[in-house]
Amino acid sequence: MRLDILTCLPELFDGPMNQSIVRRSMDKGLVEIEIHNIRDYSNHKQKSVDDYAFGGGAGMVLTIEPIDNCITALRKKRNYDEVIYLTPDGKTLNQGIANGLSLKQNMILLCGHYKGVDQRVRDHLVTREISIGDYVLSGGELAAMVLADALIRLVPGVLNDESSALTDSFQDNLLAPPVYSRPAEYKGWKVPDILLSGHEARIEAWRHDQSVELTKKKRPDLLDE
Amino acid sequence: MRLDILTCLPELFDGPMNQSIVRRSMDKGLVEIEIHNIRDYSNHKQKSVDDYAFGGGAGMVLTIEPIDNCITALRKKRNYDEVIYLTPDGKTLNQGIANGLSLKQNMILLCGHYKGVDQRVRDHLVTREISIGDYVLSGGELAAMVLADALIRLVPGVLNDESSALTDSFQDNLLAPPVYSRPAEYKGWKVPDILLSGHEARIEAWRHDQSVELTKKKRPDLLDE
Repeated sequence: MRLDILTCLPELFDGPMNQSIVRRSMDKGLVEIEIHNIRDYSNHKQKSVDDYAFGGGAGMVLTIEPIDNCITALRKKRNYDEVIYLTPDGKTLNQGIANGLSLKQNMILLCGHYKGVDQRVRDHLVTREISIGDYVLSGGELAAMVLADALIRLVPGVLNDESSALTDSFQDNLLAPPVYSRPAEYKGWKVPDILLSGHEARIEAWRHDQSVELTKKKRPDLLDE
Repeated sequence: MRLDILTCLPELFDGPMNQSIVRRSMDKGLVEIEIHNIRDYSNHKQKSVDDYAFGGGAGMVLTIEPIDNCITALRKKRNYDEVIYLTPDGKTLNQGIANGLSLKQNMILLCGHYKGVDQRVRDHLVTREISIGDYVLSGGELAAMVLADALIRLVPGVLNDESSALTDSFQDNLLAPPVYSRPAEYKGWKVPDILLSGHEARIEAWRHDQSVELTKKKRPDLLDE
């Protein structure tokens, strides 16, 4: 999988893109991520990437030209399956969408900022719009990181068995059961006896029951799907 | 507002916490954020913070002791309104929850990792559990960054008029209208005439209509609320 992330704030990606699973997946050659500063694609003398909105009103708009220049330059190098714009009014990301996107090869992720991008970018250059949730962020950068992280961990070979994605919440429309680790008693708070019993089959049954109960209580909507 | 973020991967916060609105809000003294490495609170010789799950199975669990030590140390310094655990089976974050939380003073954000935290942390130390969406991430760090960003921009004085949060999507249960900037024509793609008309009242009416139409089409659920 290859992700090209277009942003006017590339510094934001320093920490998240250099650590943990993202770094390991890149070191293993399973994932390529390149961060592009759209400022580098501006034809303006001051390398500006935003301008006032036509019709007036508060907030700047990311202009079409540098974004088009950057996408055009990338498309000359390879084919892209998707050009994804991260925006709060996009389709809400869920595990099913993440599973589907994780099978794609090359994707461009476009981060909005300020009041968003010129609508013509969305109408003519973007193939898919994704929101990570019903809340507003300072920009699309954190949303792109979230999407990248959700996808990368699904690429075969990225996770080892220890952290297998198969027992995660949502993969079977059930929330994960509670987990406990040492010590068995802490300040009087005890681990459920069943988990210390060593009886593998009963532990599995208990975990499944807990998953179903938790899902019924917290997220009954998942059971309807 | 003060946010104390507890993590076993503090390096992840380097980029996002040092840039943009987050940095500016801290420089202005409006927001304080401190990142705590829970490893520093481990009583183990190797400063370990995770261990195998009781009952077996894939994945490590963050143990209760270093987390309890860290929260106890923080509580000695000040009162906290909330201890929030970021987890995919928590209550799904939306703009209403963000608005409510942005009024609080001091909050602890606990980032899970691996298979999550010992359930006793959730039962006895955490006051609220929040999910940023129905998808699984490598850890709670990106979720904590998303929550912090969503809250910080709502703190009075953080945003200037230019980027006022009042015209954002979700604040009035309507999606934002499309925005356009220069040039008025690009590769034959034109800005709607109304936005170039200079007729302020008609532009406002057009924007409102567009917001309602977009919301009807993309997110009819928001109109029901």
